[in-house]
Amino acid sequence: MRQVAIGIDVGGTNTAIGVVDHEGNILYEKKPQMATPQKRENPTMTGAVSEELIEKYIANLSSEIKTAIETVQQINPEIEVVGIGIGAPNGNYYTGNIENAANLPFVGAVAFADLIQANFPAIKHIKLTNDANAAALGEMIYGGGKGMKNFLMITLGTGLGSGLIVDGDLVYGADGFAGEVGHTTLIPNGRLCGCGGYGHLEAYCSATGIKRTVYELLTQYNATESELAKVPYSDMTAKIVYDAAENGDPIAKEVFQNTGELLGRSLADAVHYLSPEAIFLFGGAAAAGEYIFKPTKESMERHLLPVFRNKVKILPSKLKEGSVAIIGASALVWKEMEKAK
Amino acid sequence: MRQVAIGIDVGGTNTAIGVVDHEGNILYEKKPQMATPQKRENPTMTGAVSEELIEKYIANLSSEIKTAIETVQQINPEIEVVGIGIGAPNGNYYTGNIENAANLPFVGAVAFADLIQANFPAIKHIKLTNDANAAALGEMIYGGGKGMKNFLMITLGTGLGSGLIVDGDLVYGADGFAGEVGHTTLIPNGRLCGCGGYGHLEAYCSATGIKRTVYELLTQYNATESELAKVPYSDMTAKIVYDAAENGDPIAKEVFQNTGELLGRSLADAVHYLSPEAIFLFGGAAAAGEYIFKPTKESMERHLLPVFRNKVKILPSKLKEGSVAIIGASALVWKEMEKAK
Repeated sequence: MRQVAIGIDVGGTNTAIGVVDHEGNILYEKKPQMATPQKRENPTMTGAVSEELIEKYIANLSSEIKTAIETVQQINPEIEVVGIGIGAPNGNYYTGNIENAANLPFVGAVAFADLIQANFPAIKHIKLTNDANAAALGEMIYGGGKGMKNFLMITLGTGLGSGLIVDGDLVYGADGFAGEVGHTTLIPNGRLCGCGGYGHLEAYCSATGIKRTVYELLTQYNATESELAKVPYSDMTAKIVYDAAENGDPIAKEVFQNTGELLGRSLADAVHYLSPEAIFLFGGAAAAGEYIFKPTKESMERHLLPVFRNKVKILPSKLKEGSVAIIGASALVWKEMEKAK
Repeated sequence: MRQVAIGIDVGGTNTAIGVVDHEGNILYEKKPQMATPQKRENPTMTGAVSEELIEKYIANLSSEIKTAIETVQQINPEIEVVGIGIGAPNGNYYTGNIENAANLPFVGAVAFADLIQANFPAIKHIKLTNDANAAALGEMIYGGGKGMKNFLMITLGTGLGSGLIVDGDLVYGADGFAGEVGHTTLIPNGRLCGCGGYGHLEAYCSATGIKRTVYELLTQYNATESELAKVPYSDMTAKIVYDAAENGDPIAKEVFQNTGELLGRSLADAVHYLSPEAIFLFGGAAAAGEYIFKPTKESMERHLLPVFRNKVKILPSKLKEGSVAIIGASALVWKEMEKAK
């Protein structure tokens, strides 16, 4: 038998479904992705409406999982599905619940893993966590974290997600929600964060943070000559800033310099907590390469106690941008099998 | 047989030695404590002098350990010594070395656990870590952390030490030195920390930090009428500030309020990392009770993401001030026995 895992990622817009082998090869992926129920379509959400939405969503999702299994088994009848890993916002590893996720139209806690399990009683390992945690497991099982017992995964997307690997496993904490480094305070009373807090790491070091820093610097220098000054606020992306830096735009370069300076200080804090072997950066902002890695590394080293200096690697993730959601979620399954041994 | 553990604490001035049973009762304690070799007496430290000092120190310490064992066995011949736990600055759990400890007159890394082991070949578990980590284990084995799998220990002494318990064991990290929360950045470009860094938690939330805040506030308000204004800088202690607060001194109260505000923000960061069940505060500053616990708790809650609110307890340590060094170190032994099972 050839063992495979199913990876599911519950995103705010779409839900990704795929089948992954132990080497991280995606054997099947549903395209186009199925839609996640939308909050904006359900403005007057009640418990009853929420339950109905969930019921329908779970039925559709289960049907898609069955299609996925059938498709890969048609190609190779020897394939055995050993588990289903689910990445979801506010996903609680211990309970399998999705709890009060701000971007999903569900009321309260949804027993997501149990609902899927009910439709697949023969599948042993059905586990759920949030997407950044899943990505960290993906890095450990398939990526640059192979063989490492202590490392951190930082995902630099619209927000800043993190997964903390300590002694060979994810840190879930007492309640299953550990690893929210993006919401630690970087600048007291600083920028308003998406969560309502102030000065959080995520408000500075993320694609959104980079965008905000662009306009902060344009404002600071009144830099009308910068090519970034031609782009409306709503259109600005990390990629545009990267291209401007490649063209030698000094504002763009300073944006990455400042972002790296702040990220490096925060990573130094992380090292003082957990003393990891490496810190992996993933996502659009990390794609800016040395523009972001160099100042981050320099700042981190400068903020470390002597005992930690020149020990911790900052590395680009080895996971691919387009497949991380499925890959990460599927890694949960292999980790559970390892624990069950 | 009645099993006991030896606890040793290598302090900057003295070395404490005791024998502890599984319930945390100290059966024997060397009094007065033996002296730790002093840096100031060895100003021109070389490798050769350092080796000589260590050799003599290990010989004396081993002789004191023998005395301790003989003493408890004379009282009860059934006693079996199952291990020696050592708390030491820059103590590396993995290697058993004391590495580049700033306050000890030793050059480079000293293979401390191995040197002790050579004198006690029959004792199976000889382990070493730093004092705050040892205190966290003490809290878990004997104190308020019994039965908890995820909690943090914060020791508020001259500095701020920390030990992080994740999934039932201490976080040691990749290199054995994890858990230096005192040196995370609280105020960017803030107060000079003892380590040479700026704005670290330890520079604000420790006995020393409290003292500095006293004079910051006296200066701010030119508060000549405060009873704290009568105390020279070099004589100020957390106890004096506590007594002044008890007398209704508004500066003293504001000192604790500000300290708790800052500590609470930092603990919120810690919760975002590790989501512990509880955070234990230990030491002189923690003895200020509600003056420090109330603002700390309020500030922590205010800085938490909704998902973490009203979940994490801030508790006074159940370990006794005078015995924590020996008790904590001895806890290492029981933890090793648990792991060996």
